[in-house]
Amino acid sequence: MNPIYFDNAATTPMRDEVVNAIIDVMKNSFGNPSSSHSFGRSSKTLIEKSRKTIASYLNVSASEIIFTSGGTEADNLVLKSAVKDLKVKHIITSKIEHHAVLHTVEELQKDYHVSVSYVNLDSDGCIDFLHLETLLKSEEKTLVSLMHINNEIGNILDLKRVANLCKANNTLFHSDAVQSVGHYKLDLQEIPIDFLVAAAHKFHGPKGVGFAFIRKNSALKPLVIGGEQERGLRAGTESVHNIVGLEIALKTAYDNLDKEKLYVKELKEYFLNKIKKEIPLVAFNGYSSDFKKSTYTLVNVCLPISQKKAAMLLFQLDLKGIACSRGSACQSGSSKKSHVLTEILSNEDLEKPSIRFSFSIFNTKEEVDYVIGVLKEFVD
Amino acid sequence: MNPIYFDNAATTPMRDEVVNAIIDVMKNSFGNPSSSHSFGRSSKTLIEKSRKTIASYLNVSASEIIFTSGGTEADNLVLKSAVKDLKVKHIITSKIEHHAVLHTVEELQKDYHVSVSYVNLDSDGCIDFLHLETLLKSEEKTLVSLMHINNEIGNILDLKRVANLCKANNTLFHSDAVQSVGHYKLDLQEIPIDFLVAAAHKFHGPKGVGFAFIRKNSALKPLVIGGEQERGLRAGTESVHNIVGLEIALKTAYDNLDKEKLYVKELKEYFLNKIKKEIPLVAFNGYSSDFKKSTYTLVNVCLPISQKKAAMLLFQLDLKGIACSRGSACQSGSSKKSHVLTEILSNEDLEKPSIRFSFSIFNTKEEVDYVIGVLKEFVD
Ligand SMILES: Cc1ncc(COP(=O)(O)O)c(C=O)c1O
Ligand SMILES: Cc1ncc(COP(=O)(O)O)c(C=O)c1O
Repeated sequence: MNPIYFDNAATTPMRDEVVNAIIDVMKNSFGNPSSSHSFGRSSKTLIEKSRKTIASYLNVSASEIIFTSGGTEADNLVLKSAVKDLKVKHIITSKIEHHAVLHTVEELQKDYHVSVSYVNLDSDGCIDFLHLETLLKSEEKTLVSLMHINNEIGNILDLKRVANLCKANNTLFHSDAVQSVGHYKLDLQEIPIDFLVAAAHKFHGPKGVGFAFIRKNSALKPLVIGGEQERGLRAGTESVHNIVGLEIALKTAYDNLDKEKLYVKELKEYFLNKIKKEIPLVAFNGYSSDFKKSTYTLVNVCLPISQKKAAMLLFQLDLKGIACSRGSACQSGSSKKSHVLTEILSNEDLEKPSIRFSFSIFNTKEEVDYVIGVLKEFVD
Repeated sequence: MNPIYFDNAATTPMRDEVVNAIIDVMKNSFGNPSSSHSFGRSSKTLIEKSRKTIASYLNVSASEIIFTSGGTEADNLVLKSAVKDLKVKHIITSKIEHHAVLHTVEELQKDYHVSVSYVNLDSDGCIDFLHLETLLKSEEKTLVSLMHINNEIGNILDLKRVANLCKANNTLFHSDAVQSVGHYKLDLQEIPIDFLVAAAHKFHGPKGVGFAFIRKNSALKPLVIGGEQERGLRAGTESVHNIVGLEIALKTAYDNLDKEKLYVKELKEYFLNKIKKEIPLVAFNGYSSDFKKSTYTLVNVCLPISQKKAAMLLFQLDLKGIACSRGSACQSGSSKKSHVLTEILSNEDLEKPSIRFSFSIFNTKEEVDYVIGVLKEFVD
């Protein structure tokens, strides 16, 4: 059996179309987009075309898309400037956000004395909307930061509902959509959200590039200062090849979404049915076994395996070339306990091994069979 | 005649070796370096090998190299954390630094009330060392930020002299070496500098990646917060292919430096001799006609041409496919006046067109002949 990559929420392989587009730029368009001569203008044209394409898929203006070096930088840009420049004094978020949000919010709390409220979650990691509404009654200038799709348990947030609530309460709304852009279509004219961020490498694009959607007239200021690139919102020579790679990855993902979504969804369905049959005592973390409330790309299982055997299991998975993840997307397989699962699971369940399997169009049912076969050997 | 690219200080075409290395990573190593499974470990190995290679060329430890999205981000990281975390209260810099430094310093002055001193410059853009020594007597915790090679006029700073002065005065020293790394060898054991930054695209590497050298135990903290990447100093999934591209660009540059330096130096010499002969009234900005005090990669000429004709000249250069630069490296050809030339030139000379021509191994003497021929047509 070839190595099996079931860790697509951590990062994805690039599509051939993306690789080829990047090669083309690297070989043929090297000008600095800020240069006004023909070499520069060609590069500038490429990134502006990318911006337009991306904007059109999200139904926003090109000027509302700011390229960054990834999801983390984009989260930092939005959150820090919201506090520093928009004078946000209160941030509402949740304990199961990505560290790019959580750690940034913690620093803002320390450095700028913003107050931070964490919205209550149930044992599936679903936010308590009543609690959110109460928190929104805050008198201070407030920003809500809640992710669209959780990278560990796959829960989908009702973005429109939260955005409308925020709007009704005159509150800014930012969403880390790193796990949803490229996997779900978003119409940002329909959703009154202020800021949203994405990263190319989560949908078969290159690593080291992402973007922030920043609603017009938001008065945000740059995190990285210097030249006038990205309409003054992000200085530094643009990674032109990466930006074009991002564009092609997004375009290919959305142009083929129905077909590919179905394929991956069936794979997850197959995985769910098979594992329930083979390991009846398996449990699913968050909403990850519920197709309506969770992304079709991942499942997070809690296995009925003793701690002693669990270490062996992870070792064996690796030995057999099966890539999956404990811990967070960006710390896959790290030995630290997941802050997400720690937040929502009972102590008893936390003792058992939880593993995230995340799928893409490059996976197959045969791989699922093989992986579940390996898992089964460890269950008594 | 093919288009002529004489704007290598703005950005450079990638070498074939670099393009091929990037393609190899894109096709064969897509794991997230933070993932502990085999896919992740391969990627992690690649970036740690890159870090080691780069460190060895600068004679520093691998742990002192932090990858960033480019020179600008690296400048921001160092300067902002120096103020925020190292409690620097006074910054000494110069008016002809790159905007990545100047604008960041201005923001720090506004937001953190650091005091800023600009060291005096002569009409060649050379710093006044006596003035620097006086400024260094400051009682407050001080950081000096002076670039190694100026991107517009090519002046070389005596890094070691400044570093020793700073050390003697117990002052931190940061240098933007974006125009020198890859073009000059640097031994950072010999130079007691604290921070230094570089960008791959200035030495035939990819755009969107650079690094900061951060001397051990400096207590700097990250600008971009989130995961634990880059030893906690720079969060976000690493741009693995770009980092490997940076490594190969640096390695190839330094392994071939003697030969290539000679080639480019001769080209500049040829340009200088030819333009002096054809346009005797030409003047050279900064030290750019002095090989000891200026980089071998660029020349900045002030042409004896009236303002009326100057506009036509730039138009004609572009029309004839000649890429060169007015204004700064990152704003090449922009219509804004260069802040560097404004600082050092007389009003009379500022009225005349100044143009920067910057060379690389991919340029030829025939190109020089052609370009000077075009320039000559505009001189009365
Ligand atoms: C001296 C200098 N510093 C900083 C930069 C910024 O580097 P980057 O565009 O890679 O962010 C440049 C050029 O762009 C430069 O010439
Ligand atoms: C939900 C979420 N937000 C942010 C990030 C960070 O994105 P990047 O690594 O591109 O900076 C990730 C994954 O890495 C993620 O899953």
